Amino acid sequence: MRIYINEAKNHVGKTVEIAGWLYNKRSSGKLHFLILRDGTGLMQAVVSKMDVSEDAFNISAELTQECSLIVTGKVSEEPRSPGGYELHVTDVKLIGKAEDYPITPKEHGTEFLLDRRHLWLRSRRQHAILRIRAETAAAMRDYLNSRGFVNLDTPIFTPNACEGTSDLFETEYFGSPAYLAQSGQLYNEAAIMSFGKVYCFGPTFRAEKSKTRRHLTEFWMLEPEIAWLDHDGNMDLMEDFIVEVVARVLDTRAEELKVLERDTSVLEKVQKPFPRITYDDAAKILKEKGMDFVYGSDFGGTDETVIGEHSDRPVMIHKWPADIKAFYMKRDPEDYSKALAVDMIAPEGHGEIIGGSQREDDLEEIEKRLDEHNLPRKYFEWYLDLRRYGSVPHSGFGLGLERTVGWICGTKHIRETILFPRMMHRLEP
Amino acid sequence: MRIYINEAKNHVGKTVEIAGWLYNKRSSGKLHFLILRDGTGLMQAVVSKMDVSEDAFNISAELTQECSLIVTGKVSEEPRSPGGYELHVTDVKLIGKAEDYPITPKEHGTEFLLDRRHLWLRSRRQHAILRIRAETAAAMRDYLNSRGFVNLDTPIFTPNACEGTSDLFETEYFGSPAYLAQSGQLYNEAAIMSFGKVYCFGPTFRAEKSKTRRHLTEFWMLEPEIAWLDHDGNMDLMEDFIVEVVARVLDTRAEELKVLERDTSVLEKVQKPFPRITYDDAAKILKEKGMDFVYGSDFGGTDETVIGEHSDRPVMIHKWPADIKAFYMKRDPEDYSKALAVDMIAPEGHGEIIGGSQREDDLEEIEKRLDEHNLPRKYFEWYLDLRRYGSVPHSGFGLGLERTVGWICGTKHIRETILFPRMMHRLEP
Repeated sequence: MRIYINEAKNHVGKTVEIAGWLYNKRSSGKLHFLILRDGTGLMQAVVSKMDVSEDAFNISAELTQECSLIVTGKVSEEPRSPGGYELHVTDVKLIGKAEDYPITPKEHGTEFLLDRRHLWLRSRRQHAILRIRAETAAAMRDYLNSRGFVNLDTPIFTPNACEGTSDLFETEYFGSPAYLAQSGQLYNEAAIMSFGKVYCFGPTFRAEKSKTRRHLTEFWMLEPEIAWLDHDGNMDLMEDFIVEVVARVLDTRAEELKVLERDTSVLEKVQKPFPRITYDDAAKILKEKGMDFVYGSDFGGTDETVIGEHSDRPVMIHKWPADIKAFYMKRDPEDYSKALAVDMIAPEGHGEIIGGSQREDDLEEIEKRLDEHNLPRKYFEWYLDLRRYGSVPHSGFGLGLERTVGWICGTKHIRETILFPRMMHRLEP
Repeated sequence: MRIYINEAKNHVGKTVEIAGWLYNKRSSGKLHFLILRDGTGLMQAVVSKMDVSEDAFNISAELTQECSLIVTGKVSEEPRSPGGYELHVTDVKLIGKAEDYPITPKEHGTEFLLDRRHLWLRSRRQHAILRIRAETAAAMRDYLNSRGFVNLDTPIFTPNACEGTSDLFETEYFGSPAYLAQSGQLYNEAAIMSFGKVYCFGPTFRAEKSKTRRHLTEFWMLEPEIAWLDHDGNMDLMEDFIVEVVARVLDTRAEELKVLERDTSVLEKVQKPFPRITYDDAAKILKEKGMDFVYGSDFGGTDETVIGEHSDRPVMIHKWPADIKAFYMKRDPEDYSKALAVDMIAPEGHGEIIGGSQREDDLEEIEKRLDEHNLPRKYFEWYLDLRRYGSVPHSGFGLGLERTVGWICGTKHIRETILFPRMMHRLEP
């Protein structure tokens, strides 16, 4: 019977077959200790000269790292073995050879590994990070689905460059230019008028000439949008959301976090309430700490780290100078110069993971904003219709999946948090 | 207390607040019957002159289709009312006006509606289709997640045009050309060597100059890929998958299927086993029915309809002439001229919804295939590595979400199955 390694506990004392790859091997005379991996875990298979055919023993002797094989044997408990179970082998079949596998247990440079991303994926650390990515994304979907959000997919091809063309990828669309969307938000705003609460979750594209450890040209963004929700409710939602997602990953991916040697006590502190500080107060903090920060500008990576460092949980910075924020954000009724925008900064210097806002729902106000931002009104007629026909107060946010996973995993560079990273100088493999 | 309409059953006899939009209205003297919608359902709110202020009564008199409003009232059971509950109104607040809403209950042309997609979404039919889309996608994810598949996101930007550039959208990537991916399969093949079973689920792009009701330039594709699975296992998996997904939608989206007047008895017949007929047998069927079909070519839409019409469930056509199939497909060991490929055809003329195959896992064979297809080997070195280091038999398939949803909903044109359809002549709104 063929089983996966993570099912071994249900088959103790039984003879089973495991199909996988050779992760590691030790030999000592009449014994070969094969460490197998099959995508669900690691397992030691003991090949004893006494128990197998001469052929099978000789094959075991010649197995090399990353060859594929099918091993038959009896499952037993073995607390000292990785995963807690062991296989006493009765047969070994080599399926696919692996001669001179290029990634060895020794240290390799990052460019070397990125060039071999298709193989690097098999390493324990990359496997753990991407499992956590999948769990994080599933936790996010489950949070929203169980609360009545409708998952809809906003378009990638957009006819206009909503906030300037400089960072946009362009393509020719049957004779006209089209741009790859950087956000599904405006489309989500149309959708909430039918569904109340929606989200999109898909790839987004930024042609930024940026080479920092926090940038990818292609990354996944989750964008919930909610009718009848105001700025404070929006902050409540993102806080509750992050607490639940982090708790689930801690619960279900403890094994992978251990592989990454992640200090999970730091993640356990992610509890409500998160500090909510205004932009003005954040600017004061930077001034007090002697940072070279100009009031009215955006925070840089180091600024974010400094603002976050006094807190053991994510920090929400809100009520931003309206001038540096997008046209669609609602002004603060208590201070017209401010926008009801909020950024969430992850602890430990992982930077901004969420940006959100209450949206402007008044037709005249938003027309004024379009003019101020020199955005041609004709491209936004459909968007203005949302304020003409049954406009409602509403809010939403965008969360960068890779930055969030990078924070949860404690990885320095987000390029490890996506299957095949795309960066300014990297389009392959 | 603010509630959603689908929560009314828990609040019978209580006074609640509902925020939504006016779907419809009837008035008779001292009574206004408001049909509200809030994204979760429809509910009738009865405004009696006796029970509300003069202001609230006059506001009710002037409410127009699609204005947004907040209504306060007491919930009661009312079997004759849509949804089974009714609100006896004590107050009405108008939030957002809607003067001359362009989509009225009368008939509109399709181009008129597509130009107003941002508003058309609010209609009952579009709401129902997109709810079913969200449920279908969630059912697919749940099926795979619960069976240990790891959801990974394959890249959109690809450096090479895997199967010719003619149908590809191109963009400039920091001075080099990049193409928008039509499939994540090759990347999934790398991922299974680490994770065993994976899937990607995201947008794909085809620049086909096609205007049929089955084509979009941007559509969502689900692609599972499984190590150690052969051609027959692949057919078993896709069959089991479709049966479970359809059953779940029937179970949870009965209301929406009713709105669409979908004949659900047709969907209830989607049970195992699905007919599995070879390409050769399908060609014979077409010949018998007098179709003008050339052996060795692909089936057209009408051919698919004819092949499917003798079955009340999806049909799997497999073992295709290798010449018309992709380079990565494994040859049939019993007939080298055939590929272990399979297409699944939906009933009722909805055409192909799945295409899959066992993949060629032998290095020399796949090198030969690349040469035969005139594909430059240098772009595929990384892919060949997967056959050099621990190659395993493996299979997978790709499912078009919009076509599957179109079939489940019984819609003629798949443009209604996506939030903002992108077609050859349609990039807006």
